[in-house]
Amino acid sequence: MNKLNHIGIAVNDLKKATDVYKTFLKDVEIEYEEVASQKVKVAILPLGESSLEFLEPTQDDSPIAKFLQKRGQGIHHMCIEVDDIEEALKSLEENGYRLIDKKPREGAMGMKVAFIHPKSTDGVLLELSQKVE
Amino acid sequence: MNKLNHIGIAVNDLKKATDVYKTFLKDVEIEYEEVASQKVKVAILPLGESSLEFLEPTQDDSPIAKFLQKRGQGIHHMCIEVDDIEEALKSLEENGYRLIDKKPREGAMGMKVAFIHPKSTDGVLLELSQKVE
Repeated sequence: MNKLNHIGIAVNDLKKATDVYKTFLKDVEIEYEEVASQKVKVAILPLGESSLEFLEPTQDDSPIAKFLQKRGQGIHHMCIEVDDIEEALKSLEENGYRLIDKKPREGAMGMKVAFIHPKSTDGVLLELSQKVE
Repeated sequence: MNKLNHIGIAVNDLKKATDVYKTFLKDVEIEYEEVASQKVKVAILPLGESSLEFLEPTQDDSPIAKFLQKRGQGIHHMCIEVDDIEEALKSLEENGYRLIDKKPREGAMGMKVAFIHPKSTDGVLLELSQKVE
């Protein structure tokens, strides 16, 4: 069953960015974590079967810091959860689409993740993910 | 129950933009419609309880045509579905956030919709929606 796993949003300040959502989403519980490999702090706001993931860089050479310098704050990527990420990547590659990760790597909460190049998705930075049982 | 209703993606060509998703999402059925008031053709790709909405301008003065000229193809907005849109807008306004629509207007499929200004959401163009029974 495919679903939208999350939307990643690049921001300068996690607290300021999430306050507006707390205003109108009742009883929302935000979780915080730090992803050292990506040099970001993350605020995760659950939203039905999906979530919003706010990303604040912890260092100037973080990929998110570079995105902020170039494009400013806003939606950075979206992540679709699939049943079989290896099969999805194989289909994409066979059809000539460009992959950033040819093989899945380990993402948050032990999920398998891989990014597709925005050149192949009309400007959308697309992440695929698969839950690992 | 709040949920992510859809992600809006600005593209030059609906068919090209959706082909990549059809490659790895099995049995996906895309619906097409035209929204004359916004001067766009829309391709709706269902994804669990959410959907991707691809937006192609039909005229040069469409809001989506202007976005494409300024920013290029990519994610344009996201829409959160709430139980009570009037109450959500009231809370936002009382807390000093800037609204594009102070009152909900009629959106696709008869839903009530309203946009929040990206100045108040750290660069995200946020749409709120509410189903009408």
